[in-house]
Amino acid sequence: MRHTISVIVENKPGVLSRVAGLFARRGFNIESLAVGVTEDPNVSRMTIVAEGDERDLEQITKQLYKLIDTLKVFDLPREKAVERELALIKVAANEKTRSDITQIVEIFRAQVLDVSEDSVVIEISDEADKIESMEKMLRRFGIKELVRTGKIALERGG
Amino acid sequence: MRHTISVIVENKPGVLSRVAGLFARRGFNIESLAVGVTEDPNVSRMTIVAEGDERDLEQITKQLYKLIDTLKVFDLPREKAVERELALIKVAANEKTRSDITQIVEIFRAQVLDVSEDSVVIEISDEADKIESMEKMLRRFGIKELVRTGKIALERGG
Repeated sequence: MRHTISVIVENKPGVLSRVAGLFARRGFNIESLAVGVTEDPNVSRMTIVAEGDERDLEQITKQLYKLIDTLKVFDLPREKAVERELALIKVAANEKTRSDITQIVEIFRAQVLDVSEDSVVIEISDEADKIESMEKMLRRFGIKELVRTGKIALERGG
Repeated sequence: MRHTISVIVENKPGVLSRVAGLFARRGFNIESLAVGVTEDPNVSRMTIVAEGDERDLEQITKQLYKLIDTLKVFDLPREKAVERELALIKVAANEKTRSDITQIVEIFRAQVLDVSEDSVVIEISDEADKIESMEKMLRRFGIKELVRTGKIALERGG
């Protein structure tokens, strides 16, 4: 099963390496990971998407708490969370195709960030499946480069 | 000096742990890291923001290339790049403050994703300094939770 795990840690060198090492040793493949500072600059929040069964996850949670820099760990079920990720996509474009591409950008409420003679850079912030739908529709123009942040999530309400 | 390093790697278990370990051993503090799949599902792209001098960075780049799963490493100078990151911010809100919060959301071209009786969840995708400005303006209402993806970047043009 796919899990979205939030890990609140002290913002110190080596913490990311220890957390990633823990997942690696358990054979959990991290599909995506996003880490950045929070409202407190001494504290970072990691959002990890990984595939594994309930028991493995329980073990990892226990081991995460044993790391000295871990403040909190929680698994956010999809139905209780607001989930988003960000992608930048560079698509081949010329005079003929640019308006078709712009139309797709509008449909997905995305945004053009940069235009050059033979490409455009598009920004989209949405749920993962929407990003993948847009990517699929842009593929016929030629995707030159694509970078995604990985998912971040917050609990709804409260 | 602060660097934005893009690392293209094979999407395999343990790669993130090896890359993070390399930075940790050199004493580089990773400020933010975002990793997700690319247009090729077998390939992941990491965007790492880290502080360090030119010589250390050169060493790290060499060592990154020695990792079997590394395909490409490049340092993207700010003036040549389109840079973005995403944040979700849960702010305390009530009948009295909700319209003030909405006004700030509009100024920053952000978006309200979820509303509950005593809070709102806001999504903003922008450059880091814009996100920090909005965060500062929202602080007086009370920030309950904040999560950021870390920066992603693509080269302009081409």
